[in-house]
This record gives sequence, C-alpha cells and structure tokens, in this order.
Amino acid sequence: MAAPHPLVSHPDRALPPDPVTREIAREVLRATEILPIISMHGHVDVTTFVDNAPFGDPAELFIRPDHYLTRMLGSQGISREELGLRREGPLPDPRATWRLFCQNWHLFRGTPTRYWTTDILTGIFGVTEAPSAESADRLFDHLSERLADPQYLPLALLDRFGIDLISTTDAADANLAGHKDLARGHGRGRVLPTLRPDALFAISSPAWREHLDALARVTGREVADLSSLVAALEQRRGDFIAAGGRATDHASTTADIGPMPAPDAARAFADALAGRATGEQEQSFVAHMLFEMARMSCDDGLTMQFHPGSLRDYDSATHATWGPDVGYDIPVALDFTRGVRPVLEAFGHHPRLRLVVFTLDEDTYSRELAPLAGAFPALVLGAPWWFLDSPGGMRRFREAVTETAGFYNTAGFVDDTRAFCSIPTRHDLARRIDAGHLAGLVAEHHLGLDEAIETAVHLVDTLPRRTYPEVGA
Amino acid sequence: MAAPHPLVSHPDRALPPDPVTREIAREVLRATEILPIISMHGHVDVTTFVDNAPFGDPAELFIRPDHYLTRMLGSQGISREELGLRREGPLPDPRATWRLFCQNWHLFRGTPTRYWTTDILTGIFGVTEAPSAESADRLFDHLSERLADPQYLPLALLDRFGIDLISTTDAADANLAGHKDLARGHGRGRVLPTLRPDALFAISSPAWREHLDALARVTGREVADLSSLVAALEQRRGDFIAAGGRATDHASTTADIGPMPAPDAARAFADALAGRATGEQEQSFVAHMLFEMARMSCDDGLTMQFHPGSLRDYDSATHATWGPDVGYDIPVALDFTRGVRPVLEAFGHHPRLRLVVFTLDEDTYSRELAPLAGAFPALVLGAPWWFLDSPGGMRRFREAVTETAGFYNTAGFVDDTRAFCSIPTRHDLARRIDAGHLAGLVAEHHLGLDEAIETAVHLVDTLPRRTYPEVGA
Amino acid sequence: MAAPHPLVSHPDRALPPDPVTREIAREVLRATEILPIISMHGHVDVTTFVDNAPFGDPAELFIRPDHYLTRMLGSQGISREELGLRREGPLPDPRATWRLFCQNWHLFRGTPTRYWTTDILTGIFGVTEAPSAESADRLFDHLSERLADPQYLPLALLDRFGIDLISTTDAADANLAGHKDLARGHGRGRVLPTLRPDALFAISSPAWREHLDALARVTGREVADLSSLVAALEQRRGDFIAAGGRATDHASTTADIGPMPAPDAARAFADALAGRATGEQEQSFVAHMLFEMARMSCDDGLTMQFHPGSLRDYDSATHATWGPDVGYDIPVALDFTRGVRPVLEAFGHHPRLRLVVFTLDEDTYSRELAPLAGAFPALVLGAPWWFLDSPGGMRRFREAVTETAGFYNTAGFVDDTRAFCSIPTRHDLARRIDAGHLAGLVAEHHLGLDEAIETAVHLVDTLPRRTYPEVGA
Repeated sequence: MAAPHPLVSHPDRALPPDPVTREIAREVLRATEILPIISMHGHVDVTTFVDNAPFGDPAELFIRPDHYLTRMLGSQGISREELGLRREGPLPDPRATWRLFCQNWHLFRGTPTRYWTTDILTGIFGVTEAPSAESADRLFDHLSERLADPQYLPLALLDRFGIDLISTTDAADANLAGHKDLARGHGRGRVLPTLRPDALFAISSPAWREHLDALARVTGREVADLSSLVAALEQRRGDFIAAGGRATDHASTTADIGPMPAPDAARAFADALAGRATGEQEQSFVAHMLFEMARMSCDDGLTMQFHPGSLRDYDSATHATWGPDVGYDIPVALDFTRGVRPVLEAFGHHPRLRLVVFTLDEDTYSRELAPLAGAFPALVLGAPWWFLDSPGGMRRFREAVTETAGFYNTAGFVDDTRAFCSIPTRHDLARRIDAGHLAGLVAEHHLGLDEAIETAVHLVDTLPRRTYPEVGA
Repeated sequence: MAAPHPLVSHPDRALPPDPVTREIAREVLRATEILPIISMHGHVDVTTFVDNAPFGDPAELFIRPDHYLTRMLGSQGISREELGLRREGPLPDPRATWRLFCQNWHLFRGTPTRYWTTDILTGIFGVTEAPSAESADRLFDHLSERLADPQYLPLALLDRFGIDLISTTDAADANLAGHKDLARGHGRGRVLPTLRPDALFAISSPAWREHLDALARVTGREVADLSSLVAALEQRRGDFIAAGGRATDHASTTADIGPMPAPDAARAFADALAGRATGEQEQSFVAHMLFEMARMSCDDGLTMQFHPGSLRDYDSATHATWGPDVGYDIPVALDFTRGVRPVLEAFGHHPRLRLVVFTLDEDTYSRELAPLAGAFPALVLGAPWWFLDSPGGMRRFREAVTETAGFYNTAGFVDDTRAFCSIPTRHDLARRIDAGHLAGLVAEHHLGLDEAIETAVHLVDTLPRRTYPEVGA
Repeated sequence: MAAPHPLVSHPDRALPPDPVTREIAREVLRATEILPIISMHGHVDVTTFVDNAPFGDPAELFIRPDHYLTRMLGSQGISREELGLRREGPLPDPRATWRLFCQNWHLFRGTPTRYWTTDILTGIFGVTEAPSAESADRLFDHLSERLADPQYLPLALLDRFGIDLISTTDAADANLAGHKDLARGHGRGRVLPTLRPDALFAISSPAWREHLDALARVTGREVADLSSLVAALEQRRGDFIAAGGRATDHASTTADIGPMPAPDAARAFADALAGRATGEQEQSFVAHMLFEMARMSCDDGLTMQFHPGSLRDYDSATHATWGPDVGYDIPVALDFTRGVRPVLEAFGHHPRLRLVVFTLDEDTYSRELAPLAGAFPALVLGAPWWFLDSPGGMRRFREAVTETAGFYNTAGFVDDTRAFCSIPTRHDLARRIDAGHLAGLVAEHHLGLDEAIETAVHLVDTLPRRTYPEVGA
C-alpha cells in the first residue's frame, strides 16, 4: 500500500455495470444531477453557518466528527485515544491523526466512507492522489491550504453545493437565535431548524430533569405535570414554525407509538420528577409522547420523522469516556406492524399528518413498511438510513419497497449527516442509485425512459418538497 | 403526464437485461409459455363461471375487487369514498371511478399492478394507449365495448386463457352446487372447490356462532362439542373431494400448528359457545384445529395450504366501513421453526401429507422455510405470495430458497387472485422470472441449458400437478 | 433424464455473467486460485489422517457423511432407510445407495451439493459423465478404482489439495494423541485440533454427566463444582495449545454470551449433578460458560468461534433412530445485539480476543453483525455458514456486511465440512464469489483493479492467518 495511487471519481461511478442498463442510467442521471439539494434532515450544527468560520484542519473536518470513520478504525484496534482524538478542546496533533487515517485507507474499501471521501477530496478539494502513509502529509498541507481559502467557508460552500434548503436538528430548549439571524442574512430561508425533543421523553435518564428545567426556562412556563409538558411542547413547535421549521425528529429503541392509559402516564411523569422512573416506564412514555407529537402534527402541520431501532450508547465504557454518537449504537429488530398501529388507527388517514419512518432493520422493508406506506396516506417511507445509506443499502431499499409502496410513498433522500462536506456526494450517490434502479426497470421493459426520467426528478425534488412543506404559522 | 403515451407489453419484459442471460432466458421461456395454466389457489368466485355473465364496466372489473389497486390510491389520499366505491350495490359513477384511476397511473410505476394491468389491457383487450386523464374516457368506452362481446364472457376467457384447472376458495358451509353444475357442463373438471374453514376456528369472533350453525345445517349434524366439529369437518372434506376438491386453505396470524391439551381445547370450545372465548384461546384453538386438519389430510389426501402471518383488518375504522380484504392486512414476523415443529414431528414424514407453506416474511425463506422444506417430505414451499408476488419478490424467493431446498421442494406458481383477467399475466410473469433465474444458473455454468428447460417445465406443470393431485373419493 | 450427459466444471463457473464484470473477476481470481488452503474450521476426523486408510466406496465417501445430500433425498421421500444407510457398521449395498443418488441427480439443481459434487467428480476423480440411472454403475466402478489408488489416500490428497493448515473439531475429553502423532510425521504442523466443549455445557442432557466424568479422567482432576470445571477447561485449553490448537468452537441455540449471577451458576451446576437441571438453566449456563471461555481467550489467545442459532435434533424420531448431524437442525431468529452485549462490554476491546461469529439468520448481517464487527475490535465476522455456504449465500453475505464492516473485519473462508474431498471446491467457490463481488466494485468504479486483487489475497490468506494465529504455549 506504499506506492502513490491516483484518486479518481469516475463519471460512471455507482451506475450498473451492464452496458445496456448503464447507458439508460446515464440518461436518467443527466436529468437530476443538475437539480439543487433539498436536505431536510441532518446534523450539521447551526453555528457552522452562523459563525461561518473556517473548518480548521483536515483531521477536524474529516475525522473527528465522523463516527463512520472512527468506529471503522476502532474496529481494527486503532482506538480514539490512539487516533489522538479528544472529547473537547483542540486535537493535540491533527497531522498525526490524519496520518493514521491515511495509512489505513484500505480498511474502507467497499464502504460508503471510501466513496464519499474520494468524492469530497477530488470534487471539492481537487485532490488527485489517494490517501496513504506516503501521501498523508502532502494531502494534509493541500487540504489545510484550501480550508484557509474564503471559498471554503461554510456559507460559500452552501452556495457552491447548490443547497436550496438545509435543516439542522435542535433540542427542545434551543433558542433558535442562529436560525433567526440566518433568516435575515445570507442563509435567508435556507437554514431551517428541526425540533428533536427526545431528551424530554427519556424520563429514566439522570439528565432528564435538566432538560425539563431548560424547557421551562425557554418557554417561561412551569412544567410540573404531563399537561404542562404537552403545552410547553406545543408552544415550542410554534416557535420552531416561526423560525422556519418544517419538521420534528424522534428516536426510540422500539417502533411503538401509542398512548398510555392516562393514570399510568401521569404516574410515569410523577415518578420521573421523583427520580425513580424505570426503563420500562420510559419506553411506554416515549411511545405515549410520540403519539402526542403525531396528534400535534395533525394540528400544526409539522412533518414527523421517526428513527427507531437503535440501541444507543451500547458500550458503557465508551459512552462514559466519549459521550454519545461515537459509533457505538447498534440496531435491533423492530415490530412496526404492531408498534405503529395505534397511531395509524388514530391519525393514519389524517390529511395533515406526514409520518416519515426510517429503519435499520431491512427485514421490515417488504414485510411491514412497504405494506403500511402502501395503505395509509399519513405514512411515508424515509430514505435508507445510517448503516443503509450506501450503494447496496439504497439499492436494496428500492428493490424491497417499490413493488408494494411504489415510488410516490417515499420521501426522497435525506443525508442525515454531521459532515457538511459530504452532503453533495451523498445526494449525488442517491441520485445515481435511483438512476440505476430506474434504468433497470426500463431495461426490463417495466417503464418507459421518459417515465423513468420524470420519476427520478420527482424523487429528487417533488417528493421532498411535498413531504416537508412550508408550514403556515 | 398529459400527453398520450403508447401502451406496450414488450416481448422481453421481466427478462434479465444482460444480453447473454436474456438470450438464454428467451430460450427457456419458449418452452413454458405454451403450457396450459394450472391455477390451484385463487379467489375468483364460482358464480363467475356458473352465471357466466358479462363483467360489467371497467371500474367493476379492474378497480372494485382489486385491493392492490385501491390501497395504492388510498395511500395517496384517494380514499375509497373519493373513488366512488360502494360496499354493496352498483357503483354510482363507474366512469368517474375509472377516470381517477387513469389520472393516477403514474403511482403504479414499479409495481406489479402496473405490470399486470398493462399486460391485460394490451394482451386481452387490445388497448394501445396508456391510461391517463386524457385517455380515460376513450379507454372506458373501448373496454366497455369489449366486455359486451360474448368472447369476453368468463367461460370463453377460461378457454382463451388456456386454463386447465382453476380452484376457487369456499367456506366450510358452501353448498358446492355451482361446482357440481360446472362439473356436468362446460367447465367439466376444470373448476374445483377448495375448503377454507377459517371462520370456524375464529372462536373469539362474534360471527363464529353463525358459521358453526351453518356448518350444522349443511352437514345435518348437531355440532355441540369439539369432536362433533371435527366429525362435521371430516364430512365436509368428503363433500369437497366428491365435488373435485383437492385442497384446503388456512390463514393464521402465527405459524403455529400444534395440538392443545385436550381439556384446554374442550374448554376453549365451550367458552366459544358461551361467547366468552378470548383472543389467546382463539390463537391456540386455530393451531389445534390446523393440526387436526393436517391429520385429516394424511387420511384423505387433501393438500393443505397454510397462509400465516398477516394481521387482518388492521385498520378498525376501514374494516367497520368496508369489511375485510380491502388492503388493510399487514404482515408480521413469523417463527416457523418452532411453530410447525409439532405438526412436522407428527406427520412430517407421512407419505400422503403435502403441507404447502406461504409467507409474507422474507426472512424466513433462507432461515427457516428452505431448511424445513429441504428436510421434511411433507413440507412444500408455496409460491411468493401477495406483496411478494412481483418480479423482485419472485426473484428473491428463488434466490433465497433454491440453494437449500432445490426446485423440487417448491409447489409451482399459484396466482391467489380475485382478478380473473389477471390470471394469465400472473402465470406468464412467474414463468418469465423463473426463466430468468434459470438462465442465470446457466450463464454462471451451474446448469446446462437442457436441464434449465426441463426444470422450467417441471415448475409450470409437473410440480403443481404433483402438489395438488386428484383425490380418490 | 436418461441420456448420458457430459459433466463439466466450466473455467468461468460462479463468476458474474455480465462480460465486463466477468473479465475483471477472472483477473482477480487468477491471483488467488494459486494460493494454499487454510482450513481453520471443519469436521474431518483426525483419524482420517492418522489412519490414512482408503476412503472405501463412493457411497461411503459421498453419501453417508453428507447431511446436505441425504436430507435433500429425504425431503423427496427417499429416506435414509430406503437409501440403505446404517447408523453404524458397513452399508449393506453401497452400489444400490450410490445408484439412488445418481438417479436423483436432478434434485440438486441449483444447490451447492450439485456444484461441489460436479467439481469433485471432474476435478479430483476425472469423471466426465453426469450421474444418472444409466451412468451410476460406471461411475461407481470408476470411483472405486480411483479410491483404491494410493494417490487417493488422505495424506496424499492433503498435499494434492494444497492444504497448508487444517483444523479438526475435538471434544473436551479428546486425548489428542492423533494430533501429536501427526505433528511428528507427515502432517507436521498442518493438522490442528480445535476444542469444542459444548457437551459440558449441556447440563440438562442425560449425557452430560458422562462427559463431565470423561473430562475428570483426562485432566486427572475432580470436577465437583463450577470452579473445578473452569479449572479443568483451562487445563485442557493448555493441552490443545500444546498440540497446536489455535481455536475453540461453540454452538448455542441463542446468541447470548453473558455471566449468570454466581449463586445461580453454582445452583445450576449442582442441579445438573443431581440430574435435575432444566432447559432454561441450561441456556443460561451455556451463556455463562461462553462468557468464561471468552475471558480465557483473553488470557491464552485461543480464537473463539461462535455458531449460534440452530435448533438441533429438531425431529425427535429421526434423532432417536439416526443420532445427531443428519440434516434435522433448523435455524431460528437471533438477537445478537442484546445477546453479545455483556461479552463485548467486558472484553470487546481486549487486544487478545478474537470472537468469530457465524449466523444462519441473514437478517442479522446488516442489522447487527456488521455494525458490531465494524465497531468492536474483538468481534470478527465468520464466513457464510452451512445453509448459506453457497454461491448466493456468499454473495449476499458480502453485499450485506461489507458496506458497514468492510472486508477487514471478516475472518476469511472456513469450509466447516465433514466431507474431506469437498474442501478444495468449497474454498475455490468462495474465491470465485469474492472475485465476482470485488469485480462488481471495480466495474462500478468503487475500487481499482489492483486494490481488488490485493483485497482478494488478503481474504484468502492474510485474514485467516491473522484471525487464527499460532498461540504461544
């Protein structure tokens, strides 16, 4: 792995290898590669745009925030410690961190990290040689130089990337000042907040009380019981809408969305206040509050995003040392059919509800999610998520769901990333995989080419805009 | 979507796009496309053939009975009400119903409904333009005209479709007069009944008592306890055999087939009579009665079909308004391994039992069903079912099961449809997908072309005839 | 099926049919087909090499020990009895047994048995016509003649097959004399033992006590409580290491590896001694002892192999008549995420632990196993196993796991077979499928050809050697 090796993003990358299908896919792709990006779910922090500060060095930009990358290195025994990461504060030796990554470039063969990184390095930064022990320092210098250039400031890249809309993810106590500032300035109407109130539902967590108090402060309300919690959340939804918000976002270990009996819910809240809520109470409470959120979405029109099925903070020691979101969240099997039945029976035909469902459990695609999305108007299939946000993962998604749910019950692509520079390549990859899938349908005479092209445009533009409409205050 | 658009069924439709494999697939298909249709499981009503009345208008023929189609429209907010459907009686404005479907033709891209409908419109009705808002009325007139033609009467189509055998699905209290009439007339030996006694096992349902009474009437027996229920069912199996029946058919939420302890079974029956049987009792009772049915199949030779894993009537409001079978049945995960163990330990090697198992849970293909079918002579794999009865669904079935169960532990294709006109295209599609799968094996040098052709013929003809043999009275 | 039919192993067998991808796959394969075989998990008995006796007749070699083959015949009603098999002693009419197999050659179309057998017959034995009723006797004679030739003795084949290392599977009370003999002779350092102590953990089995006593005898220790069992196992691990052992191997119905509370574990052991341990106690005890084994692996460096998820001896009658391992073990769904959490939290970052995990539940590939292997350095993905050890099974494995776990968290191929002569073709098949998978990545421009070739070599050579390193005594 020592010799320098050119780094290339081939124009036909991720398109089907069969020449007949590839030629069709190229035609389909031509219609969508020029369209702007609508990025309605992700984890780029609003301060990135508010501060519009340079991204720092390559290790800060590419390695530190990317748990796909650090967990792969960790899985090969290169721990976060060895990589020279820190939980807070500047990295002690970013060049050494970068070098370790480059030395281990081969580990990413066949992974989307490899695909995205190649595309970012070549497409955005003009890199022409592959990462390796030998090239690491040259790449570090090259990238550092570019990052110091004003053309590489976040707001400049927002334009360059062709991002029409980007949504951040924000806690229920977020002050939204950044979004308001941006709405008045360069980012006008393009950087939107999304409400993620998970921390308020985690009633068995030691941090719960802190989040509740923060909610009380930001709303100026006393939150002493379940109904005041609900009222405070309704108020915050209004605040998010006023700041341009179009959606809420929710995680859960299970797929359950359904109400608790009122006394049980009240007791769970009271137990939480007393610091003695159990894990089982929490799970029921999460399902209960998600049901409440769905009800509110019927009222106020915020799109509701549901990301269940990850067992978070799986490795206690890693969590204690490094905190959440560092690659130690592991999926579990889900039962959507029984889990979402209460919310679908209550609101599944409601004309204002759009419940966008994601999964890490591919078994549920054809067995549960496609049949549900193909029946209930409120349920929309979210894009392949997280571990499935990859060429094969996206291909299997379309193969598993389209025959039952069609294309028009899917939400379009969301990138769901913390890594700002990966947004264009992620959307581009999704367009390529969809072009390949549609080309396959044309090649097997299931669709005309004109229909495939129209559908591809709908997937990139029409469906995301319909799934995440502007919400009147 | 306004411009008129030609509607074409391409001769190579649903064959693999790679030219090498496609050429082989064409050769394989040539050997089976000429074979008659054996349709041993479906839901066309016997009165269709007994009455031999014209099919009415296009909305009655294509839309009203097809829950694939109405649920897809429903999933996009076009409710059954908006479509102008009625639970009973004639449709108020069939032309308007048809128009709404045609306007939304794009929703079906990538779905089997699109494939089947295209094939039916072009192949059976000679339509040459695609459904659209613009073409809707012309198509309605064209189709209505054809439907008035005696060549489009059910029995004429039975001949034209090359249907050698077709089985209906009939309740345990069916009088079978229609089948007997047909046996004496045009349909001689071609339209067979299948016994579906599910309603008698649903002991917690309010309608149970009514079905029990009907069974008592049709058998002339008092059915006052479990043993008289069993005896009445044995009698009815004889009646079905005398009317040409070759199979029974059974649904269940779980995969369990196994006996209850005798006192529990007796108590469940008594509780049912008293109107207080619970849902849990019902599930155990279903498993118990399915075990009884398997035992009877060992005696009388009726093939036993098992369709578990759908949570029926999922949306209570829809069920209350529209009744069953309108697209609101959603699959759940299954445990076949533990569920069918009792029946396989008891009868899995019995030379007369053929237990044909279907699933909506693709995970069970390679994990459970193929290993079971590849070991127990009594267990046969049914064709991909319902949501999986599609190009991709059928492809994944062969890919997941063949390596463990081979081809010869599969039952051949059943169409399982209410839509009579879709029978030829469904069988044709299955032949195409199997041709493509076999061609892939030839292209990868796993099989010779002669073997592939022979296997394809076995799948279409030999295996269904072997799975559903004529039963001596 | 009567006409004689040539039997050919095509040079491009199991490579992708698309000409572009096939050409790349050929180039990748060229780099690995010449490499020696490292077979670190399998079930060939050590006496095969110690005795170095001729393999007997074709029925003894191909049919009797191969439960893939006998269960497929059984699934078509050709029972072990009808095949003329015996549980012990010589077969009464091996030629008749062989003939029945040949007559039913078509049953194996599309299965790996067909693939392997073809390759063995042509490649090792120079057969040129396909098995059939007509050719059966000629093949029997041809094969019998070859088997009598000294070139077909086990140790000669070991050389001819290019087997660099082969590991047997041995009970905890194995005396290892054979391995020691071989270490001094022809097999020097090539035939290694693997410790499989399952029988000692099956505390509710009637045979448990016998195995415990055998352990006591071979270690010269009293094994009267849990701590003396642990100590005896530690001693035996040392014995295996001294005899060249590099690994342990473990089956379980569930995926649980985690400790019981100490008093529960002690009580389970005491109940077992008293002959009253329950099935539930056993399952917890298995999980407990597997946790102990993982702990010991951290100490002594033996690689730990985990094969969960098969419900063994599923058909009681077959088990009573024929014993274990005759094709009646059926997979069940698994929950790895929760099951292995205790062992991963305890030892998942330990630098000496290599826990190689296998599954028969493909759903767990992308949902659980790839995320776990892509995070924890101790967890390594084992090759597709048993029912999944097939062209499609291996392809789906790479497709499902690579994007999350990469190639470098996989262990390389193990053949896991009782059928010695199938070892070369199984490894060859794995190399072909991996060549095809890598070629697909090259054809879609995810990898350079040089990287694909290097990765292929790593999969065949580097990763197995790294996963199963020599253990210092």
